[in-house]
Amino acid sequence: MIVVMHRDATQEDIRRVEEYLTGMGFKTHPIYGQVKTVIGAVGDKSCLNKDLLSNLTGVEAIVSIMKPYKLVSREFKSEDTTVAVDDVVIGGRDLVIMAGPCAVENRHQLLEVAQRVKEAGAKILRGGAYKPRTSPYDFQGLELEGLKLLEEAKQATGLKVVTEVMDTRDVELISRYADILQIGARNMQNFRLLKEVGQGDKPVILKRGLAATIEEWLMAAEYIVSEGNGDVILCERGIRTYETAARNTMDINTIPIVKQYTHLPIIADPSHGTGNWKLVGPVSQGLIAAGADGLLIEVHPDPACALCDGAQSLQPHKFQQLMDELVPIARAVDRGLK
Amino acid sequence: MIVVMHRDATQEDIRRVEEYLTGMGFKTHPIYGQVKTVIGAVGDKSCLNKDLLSNLTGVEAIVSIMKPYKLVSREFKSEDTTVAVDDVVIGGRDLVIMAGPCAVENRHQLLEVAQRVKEAGAKILRGGAYKPRTSPYDFQGLELEGLKLLEEAKQATGLKVVTEVMDTRDVELISRYADILQIGARNMQNFRLLKEVGQGDKPVILKRGLAATIEEWLMAAEYIVSEGNGDVILCERGIRTYETAARNTMDINTIPIVKQYTHLPIIADPSHGTGNWKLVGPVSQGLIAAGADGLLIEVHPDPACALCDGAQSLQPHKFQQLMDELVPIARAVDRGLK
Amino acid sequence: MIVVMHRDATQEDIRRVEEYLTGMGFKTHPIYGQVKTVIGAVGDKSCLNKDLLSNLTGVEAIVSIMKPYKLVSREFKSEDTTVAVDDVVIGGRDLVIMAGPCAVENRHQLLEVAQRVKEAGAKILRGGAYKPRTSPYDFQGLELEGLKLLEEAKQATGLKVVTEVMDTRDVELISRYADILQIGARNMQNFRLLKEVGQGDKPVILKRGLAATIEEWLMAAEYIVSEGNGDVILCERGIRTYETAARNTMDINTIPIVKQYTHLPIIADPSHGTGNWKLVGPVSQGLIAAGADGLLIEVHPDPACALCDGAQSLQPHKFQQLMDELVPIARAVDRGLK
Amino acid sequence: MIVVMHRDATQEDIRRVEEYLTGMGFKTHPIYGQVKTVIGAVGDKSCLNKDLLSNLTGVEAIVSIMKPYKLVSREFKSEDTTVAVDDVVIGGRDLVIMAGPCAVENRHQLLEVAQRVKEAGAKILRGGAYKPRTSPYDFQGLELEGLKLLEEAKQATGLKVVTEVMDTRDVELISRYADILQIGARNMQNFRLLKEVGQGDKPVILKRGLAATIEEWLMAAEYIVSEGNGDVILCERGIRTYETAARNTMDINTIPIVKQYTHLPIIADPSHGTGNWKLVGPVSQGLIAAGADGLLIEVHPDPACALCDGAQSLQPHKFQQLMDELVPIARAVDRGLK
Repeated sequence: MIVVMHRDATQEDIRRVEEYLTGMGFKTHPIYGQVKTVIGAVGDKSCLNKDLLSNLTGVEAIVSIMKPYKLVSREFKSEDTTVAVDDVVIGGRDLVIMAGPCAVENRHQLLEVAQRVKEAGAKILRGGAYKPRTSPYDFQGLELEGLKLLEEAKQATGLKVVTEVMDTRDVELISRYADILQIGARNMQNFRLLKEVGQGDKPVILKRGLAATIEEWLMAAEYIVSEGNGDVILCERGIRTYETAARNTMDINTIPIVKQYTHLPIIADPSHGTGNWKLVGPVSQGLIAAGADGLLIEVHPDPACALCDGAQSLQPHKFQQLMDELVPIARAVDRGLK
Repeated sequence: MIVVMHRDATQEDIRRVEEYLTGMGFKTHPIYGQVKTVIGAVGDKSCLNKDLLSNLTGVEAIVSIMKPYKLVSREFKSEDTTVAVDDVVIGGRDLVIMAGPCAVENRHQLLEVAQRVKEAGAKILRGGAYKPRTSPYDFQGLELEGLKLLEEAKQATGLKVVTEVMDTRDVELISRYADILQIGARNMQNFRLLKEVGQGDKPVILKRGLAATIEEWLMAAEYIVSEGNGDVILCERGIRTYETAARNTMDINTIPIVKQYTHLPIIADPSHGTGNWKLVGPVSQGLIAAGADGLLIEVHPDPACALCDGAQSLQPHKFQQLMDELVPIARAVDRGLK
Repeated sequence: MIVVMHRDATQEDIRRVEEYLTGMGFKTHPIYGQVKTVIGAVGDKSCLNKDLLSNLTGVEAIVSIMKPYKLVSREFKSEDTTVAVDDVVIGGRDLVIMAGPCAVENRHQLLEVAQRVKEAGAKILRGGAYKPRTSPYDFQGLELEGLKLLEEAKQATGLKVVTEVMDTRDVELISRYADILQIGARNMQNFRLLKEVGQGDKPVILKRGLAATIEEWLMAAEYIVSEGNGDVILCERGIRTYETAARNTMDINTIPIVKQYTHLPIIADPSHGTGNWKLVGPVSQGLIAAGADGLLIEVHPDPACALCDGAQSLQPHKFQQLMDELVPIARAVDRGLK
Repeated sequence: MIVVMHRDATQEDIRRVEEYLTGMGFKTHPIYGQVKTVIGAVGDKSCLNKDLLSNLTGVEAIVSIMKPYKLVSREFKSEDTTVAVDDVVIGGRDLVIMAGPCAVENRHQLLEVAQRVKEAGAKILRGGAYKPRTSPYDFQGLELEGLKLLEEAKQATGLKVVTEVMDTRDVELISRYADILQIGARNMQNFRLLKEVGQGDKPVILKRGLAATIEEWLMAAEYIVSEGNGDVILCERGIRTYETAARNTMDINTIPIVKQYTHLPIIADPSHGTGNWKLVGPVSQGLIAAGADGLLIEVHPDPACALCDGAQSLQPHKFQQLMDELVPIARAVDRGLK
């Protein structure tokens, strides 16, 4: 850690900062520049209060040399982490495609989609039973009934199931039905929820917050892993920027950056990332070519009748077509797809 | 509502859209342009599925004429709403200043700050017992013990108390100790939490999300109000942008815009909005001059020892000085301050 | 165009708006909702002053149905535009890779890079003779001497040459040496410069502004095309957001969106889009898979000695390797690469 | 400057970095942490190539301790700079209000506005003769004729005149008519234009770019000052963010931050900052209360007939009213406004 002292800092200020740092068990190395003095500090930062330090007189800034996350960092574990749900492995050589409707609406809809995405090569069924909606007047999900339908679709197709959890009070119940729990973008920093799923034994898909930095996202993952659950799958779903031509901005840089920073697998959600089914195809191809470990895609038998996010849902035959187009891309980057 | 048809939409497409709309009880008014056709639709949109509509063949876009929020809108209620906690009224002619430490740390710290901010003219004591922290390794709050200390400080000073709630499971407990519940920026779209506090009887300070639009913020308020709790106080705490010179970007436009869109009171948090105590003074003056109904300010007896956000906390004597500087500003905009 | 009237607008207000519109040659179609009235207006908007209209009493908003750009829009010309520089065609089936140093530094550097990128399969040599630098104290380019070196490299290798123009006064001179003129991100809305290159006969690469919307970007292209020069190549180079993990945010959605809105070809610049050579490979693969017509890549024989942007430059052998990796991706999306 | 070495950097890497730094005349101070080594370097960075350094093997990051701008920094000159145009002084105790139409449209309009804003207390007349417009089909300004009308209005009222320059070729001509040259937001990084006005003797209002950081903005000012012209006035006009409720986001933090970083005066443009005349009043009050040295406000006798930006222009009587409301605010922050 580097402590930058203000140009007007006195020798006394510098002395006090060094004193504080040594008191906290750091070795200090002051460097006197023409204008400013900086103090290098070597030691264990976890037992340090940065705010406290930053408020000592004469301190202008503190520069961290180490990243704030530990367990999820590449530096902590260099080999890739794979998350296995029985025989479905996320983060390995094979790409894993997760598909299904935004929301579970009824038995017929879910079973049909499940069948179709299974045939097309998806390995995991997605579907929301509890839906976070911007408006209190929109469809909020079938809740328990939805979970039971997911269970039924799972039995019928053999697909694994991922569904979203929004409330600490629901974690236990949903864990009984789902193979993977999803934490949505709006709850990425719902820290109590992160701890709750971190104490469970179900793999977690952690979506990136609407305006979360990659560092905050990895810190959110650290919350889960530090509670004991290491099966975290990151999911890039687009961020919010000034551009309104698409629902979100899909930053392709994220894929290789995340691979550099962490050992956790990363998938992408082109449906939310674009908000427009017409863009899902090319964007999916781009994300896979850039190194994503899988995709989370919304598929609906009749988007025009979807109770949510119909505009970004693919019809089953279009999803089938996309899967076919992804095969040569996967091969080009030496990944397997069914 | 206006439905814009694609330039290549057929007469058949247009017919089907009109059919659907009339089926939903709308009156339709097609307008045939040289290039495109648009269909005006008059009726009750609440019983309409926009996604469904947007997916009918030939539909290019849907333009809403009415705002999505109802109960919190100026159009629904034109006169200003005031929120009263006994004799302290937020949203009236008098400005209400809320001050205190970021986190409740110990008895001595809290009681001292409470006393000092009371003397300076604050009416409400702020202090976190449950803290949302980016890192799982940072101080997470004293929880129940913190609530009891707030209770004690309230008895000692007569100040009202506001503290944050992060988990649906804590709402009942915290409501027993706090006069006002705070929903933090990271939970602005924690919809289950919004519903929970909406079913309670405590006033709620709803902070704007890090990257929430004003519309999403008002929709979050709508969640609370639609559950029956109309005592919502909006709090602008800065948004996230590309600018890193300050912790957040404090959009002064928000104050008059919110006053235009809603009847709810709006206060501002210059401490989080700037992240730097040196900026809190001028920014507070600016926000009051622009029409804010109050301020939420972090004060700590010894910022250098604060367990969180020390860098943005004012020392009690600096807070006193700020209060003095605010008096002439308040007068200039015809508002009362103690 | 739709004119939305304020809920409090009077019949008289509505009458005056209709009067104004009909006076401007529009046919008006008022639609009376329960709360608000909207007026559909059919006619030629080019001869309309929107600001004027938006200020008539009672007018709340104006909703455009048609896009503001004409000549560059897909609606104006549905088939793809290709830009040919002799035998090198941008926007056709074959991908075109442009590569070279950020800045032309000296004869040896440029000729070596030119030779190497040519061998690797690049068709166009990039290199800046006039450099826009954030600091007045940074290297500003070799100017005329740089142009002459580009000329020499062109003769030696047969590569076409693209270089940036920053000043209306330089357009004529640079046009004598370059095959393609580049308008940099910072000058995307330097309208006088756009007009100047629009009056010339050299193809133009128009980079997207740091925070330009796709619509503003296409309007900038419209400036060039409306002056008579239709040979415009759009170049996505990343936008600015709150995320700092990479130099810019590379929105992959842009590629398919631009293809939808305009007939102009679009290439991408992963070097500036990432600011980090380690990310250039996977991001390039992603952009090609998403449909980009080509790439603009920085290559430097010794990045550690580059006078600008060394951090994002590939060494020649790494560029060769990237070209090899791009071949199967190109094939997977049915595009040619040498 | 601090050079952070990668955790895997070898002793040899570290040696080479030190060697390079000492070769460039720096004194180096390596600090060996448990995981990483950082090298403190003391010396004159202006003669250093940061890209070069950042590309030496093993270098992970470079942390600058000093700001990149020199002449405009507070550290270079601690007392406030004032810019005088005859008897009108910007940056002193008295606030300076600049007002007028977005564009000079005709003799009658300009003379009337000039008279009215003069009566209301404005000291400087603003009006565009050369207009940067997003669309090539919008009104582009009266150019020379506009300059002559500004000259006439100046004679008639005694107001000073500020107008925008967009092209290096126009600087000389416009300088003959204007008292202050304005560089618009879109040209903030038109470096050739900055140099051109830097070589002139007219004060320059430098507007902040749509997405410019404060640092980039000050670097743009450094371009002008380093050419010899120290009379630079910064103008905050709002930045672009995801929020669309107003035309721009007006970051009030900018005012005190800029005052901290530089000695140059800063004014604000609430007309562009909001894009909505209804917001101009409260936002102007807020900006003055936060410490702005003046305002740039659009006034039009008949906004409904403005050829540009009518929606954000105040009518003369509303401007008069705003000036009256500003008086007590100015007094509250101990500034003069007669």
